[in-house]
Amino acid sequence: MKKYLLAPGPTPVPEVILEKMAEPMVHHRTPAFKAMVGEAIEGLKYIYQTKNDVLIFTSSGTGAMEGAVSNVINPGDKVIVARGGKFGERWGEIIEKFGGKPLYIDLEWGSPVDPADVEKLLKENPDVKAVYTQLTETSTCVVMPVKELGEIVAKTDALLVIDAISGLGGQEFYMDDWKVDICVSGSQKGLMLPPGHAYAAVSEKAWKVIDNCTQPNYYFNWKKYRKKLADNTDPYTGSVLHVKGLLVAIDMIKKAGLENMFYQYKVLGKAVRAAVEALGLKVFANPSCDVATAVSIPDSVDGLALVKMLRDKYGFTIAGGQAHVKGKIFRIAHMGYIEIFDIISVLSALEICLNELGWEFEWGAGLAAAQEVLANEYKF
Amino acid sequence: MKKYLLAPGPTPVPEVILEKMAEPMVHHRTPAFKAMVGEAIEGLKYIYQTKNDVLIFTSSGTGAMEGAVSNVINPGDKVIVARGGKFGERWGEIIEKFGGKPLYIDLEWGSPVDPADVEKLLKENPDVKAVYTQLTETSTCVVMPVKELGEIVAKTDALLVIDAISGLGGQEFYMDDWKVDICVSGSQKGLMLPPGHAYAAVSEKAWKVIDNCTQPNYYFNWKKYRKKLADNTDPYTGSVLHVKGLLVAIDMIKKAGLENMFYQYKVLGKAVRAAVEALGLKVFANPSCDVATAVSIPDSVDGLALVKMLRDKYGFTIAGGQAHVKGKIFRIAHMGYIEIFDIISVLSALEICLNELGWEFEWGAGLAAAQEVLANEYKF
Repeated sequence: MKKYLLAPGPTPVPEVILEKMAEPMVHHRTPAFKAMVGEAIEGLKYIYQTKNDVLIFTSSGTGAMEGAVSNVINPGDKVIVARGGKFGERWGEIIEKFGGKPLYIDLEWGSPVDPADVEKLLKENPDVKAVYTQLTETSTCVVMPVKELGEIVAKTDALLVIDAISGLGGQEFYMDDWKVDICVSGSQKGLMLPPGHAYAAVSEKAWKVIDNCTQPNYYFNWKKYRKKLADNTDPYTGSVLHVKGLLVAIDMIKKAGLENMFYQYKVLGKAVRAAVEALGLKVFANPSCDVATAVSIPDSVDGLALVKMLRDKYGFTIAGGQAHVKGKIFRIAHMGYIEIFDIISVLSALEICLNELGWEFEWGAGLAAAQEVLANEYKF
Repeated sequence: MKKYLLAPGPTPVPEVILEKMAEPMVHHRTPAFKAMVGEAIEGLKYIYQTKNDVLIFTSSGTGAMEGAVSNVINPGDKVIVARGGKFGERWGEIIEKFGGKPLYIDLEWGSPVDPADVEKLLKENPDVKAVYTQLTETSTCVVMPVKELGEIVAKTDALLVIDAISGLGGQEFYMDDWKVDICVSGSQKGLMLPPGHAYAAVSEKAWKVIDNCTQPNYYFNWKKYRKKLADNTDPYTGSVLHVKGLLVAIDMIKKAGLENMFYQYKVLGKAVRAAVEALGLKVFANPSCDVATAVSIPDSVDGLALVKMLRDKYGFTIAGGQAHVKGKIFRIAHMGYIEIFDIISVLSALEICLNELGWEFEWGAGLAAAQEVLANEYKF
């Protein structure tokens, strides 16, 4: 059976990237490899839309999240965390682990933070060191108003720290224009690489804070990585394969054009929303992001069985819900190396499974609704 | 020009492993992938020769070293560090960063620790929490008397923590028989994989200490990884590619037999030592380990030029010296996917470069000496 991967990470890896990664191993301290690292960093700056330093880590995205805490806050520091999903909660867990004192803005899952709430909390707490949230919250597929948050936070001494692990390269984002201080990301989402690489872009305002951080850290000590930037290298033996793959990914993204990629994923998202609504289902998040769509599963349909059937019977790996929405939502990714006919295929399989699980709708209604959006708006 | 990689990490990756890693991406939470993780952990237990838990991290080996500190010692804890090279120094740096109080046994580079010195220090300091050292110190190529240390440390409440990043799978090592409590390793040496994976095997005695550690850590929190062992999964999105490659590596090692691999590398090391001595050079470490050989460069030969010439003119990437032995030693690896004729080739290139740099010797003397060892002792 042919397999289709449409989970919000890891996403499919283009064949040309896998082939590049399968070349014979090279040593990480050679001039040839250092030149590759330099090129990769320049490419990441384009994708981040930043002139800031970009650091590369060999770890999951969570490693970069940890660094964005352990290099920034000292024990007792007050921070704001806007959380409404599993990854917002992860910010909180890491911050508490490192002795930070989070002021939580708790959001209903699927809802974004109201920038006015952040503004108010910052005014009441002028000693807040940083505001932590997501660009896209992978567990709910909501998109956060990062641009508006940037306007507010930039007027204060606090840093704006964004987890764009699932957003970068897919969801509209302009680090410098939007006044973001730290933005972490990972390889296995919009960047089309296998899991194993994480990134952080760091503003000058953030480096001043980092320079005064006394927290114990070693592997994720960002000051060490910054020193190595001059030499285009890594303090440790980093993932040679991911750097090589990243160069191919960057080349693909540059050739397509970042704005065009944002546009395509936006259209794919719109098509998925139109399709599931035509099938009588509801989109879970509002506003729903462009890189993945979460869909509420009606009570009469067995949500766990739906995701399992898609995978085991029809070959489509999508994602279910996590924590209290387990079995209650499913999530389909439309980022990275996922294109129009992958979406058509998964929507077809979805109709087949929904029918099998007793949900009533008109055959092809979802496909028709998606088709209408895609035929009119997707750029071939 | 054909390229040869004989540095002590990363080492060459077998083509069958690279091909396996180039297969289409799979999701990390599927039953099929979890089964692979379970199999990889069982295979690592064989390579470690242990019944203990084995944890897999997506990071460089240094990430596992950090975890072996941040999960073990609380600020103020006294530990012994036997250091005589860059990686012994790294233990010290990490321990100091996390507030530990190291008692250093400083060794001349290239010399091993005397177990009696550790025994004495442990008697004088019964409150020592752990003894940290290397199996093989990559920067000098010395092998440490881990078995003897195990006998001594096991009689105390202290843990024996071994960095076997460059040794595992190549240098004779039996974790359980040798009474080692924590042994960290990495993917890119004897295990023949690209850099990006790190491992830790952890004894029950060590888990009891870890359970009482209050240090802040998140990504490298070993208790979290242990909990996930029951489900054969990872707390985060780990490197899918490395797990797939690891299965192939384990299969190769099992088929060859761990003892046979130890034997082959021992013979290769003996051949390299015989060759360089026949060329009038001196082996740097005593005892020299089986996975790589460090060789002193005579004052009359430009050591930096030698390593550069081997790489740029003849295609051989070996390693030079680090820190104060930079330009004074070179290191040739003989572990992982490095076999007899790779060694013959690099020794030939070495003779050519040494001659070009003015060192006098009889043409072929090194090759002849190696040949004699290899023809008699290597198992074809």
